[in-house]
Amino acid sequence: MKLTCERDIHVRFNEVDSLGILWHGHFIKYFEDGREAFGAKYNLGYMDVFSEGYVIPLVDMDCSFKVPIKYGDKVRIEATFVDTPAAKIIFDYKLYNPDTNQLYATGRTVQVFLTKEDNQLHITLPEFYIEWKKKRGLLPE
Amino acid sequence: MKLTCERDIHVRFNEVDSLGILWHGHFIKYFEDGREAFGAKYNLGYMDVFSEGYVIPLVDMDCSFKVPIKYGDKVRIEATFVDTPAAKIIFDYKLYNPDTNQLYATGRTVQVFLTKEDNQLHITLPEFYIEWKKKRGLLPE
Amino acid sequence: MKLTCERDIHVRFNEVDSLGILWHGHFIKYFEDGREAFGAKYNLGYMDVFSEGYVIPLVDMDCSFKVPIKYGDKVRIEATFVDTPAAKIIFDYKLYNPDTNQLYATGRTVQVFLTKEDNQLHITLPEFYIEWKKKRGLLPE
Amino acid sequence: MKLTCERDIHVRFNEVDSLGILWHGHFIKYFEDGREAFGAKYNLGYMDVFSEGYVIPLVDMDCSFKVPIKYGDKVRIEATFVDTPAAKIIFDYKLYNPDTNQLYATGRTVQVFLTKEDNQLHITLPEFYIEWKKKRGLLPE
Repeated sequence: MKLTCERDIHVRFNEVDSLGILWHGHFIKYFEDGREAFGAKYNLGYMDVFSEGYVIPLVDMDCSFKVPIKYGDKVRIEATFVDTPAAKIIFDYKLYNPDTNQLYATGRTVQVFLTKEDNQLHITLPEFYIEWKKKRGLLPE
Repeated sequence: MKLTCERDIHVRFNEVDSLGILWHGHFIKYFEDGREAFGAKYNLGYMDVFSEGYVIPLVDMDCSFKVPIKYGDKVRIEATFVDTPAAKIIFDYKLYNPDTNQLYATGRTVQVFLTKEDNQLHITLPEFYIEWKKKRGLLPE
Repeated sequence: MKLTCERDIHVRFNEVDSLGILWHGHFIKYFEDGREAFGAKYNLGYMDVFSEGYVIPLVDMDCSFKVPIKYGDKVRIEATFVDTPAAKIIFDYKLYNPDTNQLYATGRTVQVFLTKEDNQLHITLPEFYIEWKKKRGLLPE
Repeated sequence: MKLTCERDIHVRFNEVDSLGILWHGHFIKYFEDGREAFGAKYNLGYMDVFSEGYVIPLVDMDCSFKVPIKYGDKVRIEATFVDTPAAKIIFDYKLYNPDTNQLYATGRTVQVFLTKEDNQLHITLPEFYIEWKKKRGLLPE
């Protein structure tokens, strides 16, 4: 059972550089769009996590660029949850053209749990996250 | 006695659009750069104001674009304090080439005082701001 | 007959500042979103104009901020064409909550026509624009 | 002989998110700042390469975040050229506090050569790049 979510992206004129292609740094926003859409769908958004007493900053991020995106191109982001026993949240991303399936880019982000109160790294799974995983069938009840 | 401050701007490759000119929305960042430089010079930065119990959101902003800025162009921002008896902070901006004096753009921003606690508009001059104005010769001691 | 267009905006986490509100500079992107949506609906997009031999840079822009936008707020942009006999394209903008009609901000932009070839200001209406206006009932056939 | 370049970064108020830390996507701009500074110092800037008939888009990028950057923090970017026999340009980055040497983040980008004319991948070293490497002592004369 793959936990995944898609969102269509609107490429802005101002995100396209002087070579006529989407500037690479903007892909990071699109990854976040995918993550937010996932969070909204599966109740794992920034605010959900925050209300449980945690913030989830990125510790690692990578991106591979396959084909440039141009102004007017259709873009869909797919964010897929990557299960891990560690106290981390990992997502894989695919950016592609939903009409042609042309792949634009892939990427991955890794997030950790910090306690909201004192910004301490939480090295075991937070209670709420264990519950979340159980509900999604990622941990036994 | 004009209260004014200058800062040199680094135009980024990614701020230039597909027509090869600085995208107009980025001017707003440069205005803020000027405002921050002014705040640092005259102790009226966001953090200074915040520590006095206020936030100072913008209520009005305008910009006139004279000459496009290109990647590699030298850009200087000048932020000048515009005195007013109202409970507002007004700045005028000039963006220009420090070598040729070519004017790129002008603008103005208007900020108001909200109390940090309850986000209420402060319609008279906050005490700390009266002191600040006295120190700068804008109000009699 | 009002020429107008609406688009719903997705406020990104990264567009919200440390005071928890949408940073004011991002409103300019939203205005462009409205302008692009209008262009797509009425065939007056950047690419349409470009293919006719013109670019249409902004010369003036202003914005009034009424109520702060927060992460998670619903935002709709409305771009309305403001007719003028001058060789300019003027839009008025309204940013509001589509559920409550709460007004967040208003603004205006003014664009001029430059010839693509030599970046010269076109001070009379370009032929294609006269045709466009006729089609929209803004000039007699 | 390490080919490296440093530039001090100005963290903008609007780059800081609602958690009070620099939003992770902005690190990519800082990497580009380092790359541009390197290009200016060693004649390997976008415009230098462009004038030789090539564009150099990124194909890979990664970033590890160690310590959050806050508004007001001093930030220095260091971009170091990583030599490779492949037809690629690789840079390693370090973001750190120049006063305390506190490391904020590290990263790497990989760029390839496309011919400006027809956007074809150049799989051998372009002539100008061979010359550049010779001049820098990275290839025998």
